[in-house]
Amino acid sequence: MDYSSDAYVHRIARYYRRIRHLNQFGAVRVSSDELADYMNISPSQVRTDLSKLGVGQSGYGYKISALSEELEKLLGIDKINEMILIGVGKLGQALLAYPGFYRYGFRFRAAFDINPSLQGKTFGYLQEPIQSASELPRFLAKNKIPIAVLAVDPESVQPIVDILVDGNIEAIWNFASNYPDVPEDVVLENVRILESLLKLSYQLEDDNESFQKGEKET
Amino acid sequence: MDYSSDAYVHRIARYYRRIRHLNQFGAVRVSSDELADYMNISPSQVRTDLSKLGVGQSGYGYKISALSEELEKLLGIDKINEMILIGVGKLGQALLAYPGFYRYGFRFRAAFDINPSLQGKTFGYLQEPIQSASELPRFLAKNKIPIAVLAVDPESVQPIVDILVDGNIEAIWNFASNYPDVPEDVVLENVRILESLLKLSYQLEDDNESFQKGEKET
Repeated sequence: MDYSSDAYVHRIARYYRRIRHLNQFGAVRVSSDELADYMNISPSQVRTDLSKLGVGQSGYGYKISALSEELEKLLGIDKINEMILIGVGKLGQALLAYPGFYRYGFRFRAAFDINPSLQGKTFGYLQEPIQSASELPRFLAKNKIPIAVLAVDPESVQPIVDILVDGNIEAIWNFASNYPDVPEDVVLENVRILESLLKLSYQLEDDNESFQKGEKET
Repeated sequence: MDYSSDAYVHRIARYYRRIRHLNQFGAVRVSSDELADYMNISPSQVRTDLSKLGVGQSGYGYKISALSEELEKLLGIDKINEMILIGVGKLGQALLAYPGFYRYGFRFRAAFDINPSLQGKTFGYLQEPIQSASELPRFLAKNKIPIAVLAVDPESVQPIVDILVDGNIEAIWNFASNYPDVPEDVVLENVRILESLLKLSYQLEDDNESFQKGEKET
């Protein structure tokens, strides 16, 4: 594992969210000190990260509009990204209703579930009515969708991933607690909810106090 | 930010999940090479991490039962951890129904929502019927619960966090997309769902391919 580059992407995502927030409040420029302070990292780390983007800092800081544009390109959100959802239980329904994805250019084009009572319904920002999970291979053959979001039971993760991979999906965003195997050319991002809770309980332990301070916002 | 120790806790959580998995399949010992391979890190990193635990590796690898016990202590899950949930929308209901938390000793003792139609109901593993959010200060004054789970709208995050902090909560696990301010002695763990999706879309960009390989599972 080369942790540094994973950490880099993580920081890039956070710079972008911060820049967007500042932009909404009408800010025009931001300094590396301000960004560093917000993210609890060093100003030199900020300058190194952002210099890779080719966005220079003058004595007055970074121009927010230019930084925002470069970060959007880097993050691949300078365009609409279509997604499909597999599993429309409560978690799936919550994801369909979340406005944040929509605001960042992500669209739920279609959703699939094995439960017949859900088929034909829509929720939140979903663009087409929910289809039977058995339609998935046919749908993938006809439509080029880059991202599949998985909100299914642990047992179903690998079988569905195999169908998605056969259907040439490019990326899988997995909310289930077990992590599937994918070929090297498929991007897999696991949302590690349980590990997040374990991190929290680790920090709660008195013995681990030395790790606690300043470690909350990373 | 000292990223290394955040990464350390992350690795500890992953060792534990792997050990538990191996244990369920009846394994008795595991080598640092096997753990390293699974986690895509170096065997020497595994040995360094686990030596801090005081669990030695013989020529036959680590004893899974001993490793499991030490990791549970370190992660604070060698006991029952009570939680309260604020916000019982779809995401909140999904969290209440998730068996993983229960299996790791986390219990949803009580849940709170502003929606009167939810009050008195129960979902999943919730131990007491849902209460009005206005009951929260009184509940906190009477009950010592270490962890609050937040699944509320972004606007409500900071006001609820302020109530929780006044009520001496020790840790906040936040699923909302904005991150509240907490005093230094309160543990805050944000589940960064949107940032996880941005990481995925970053990896989808062809230009970023060099970051992609071997970076999926970190």
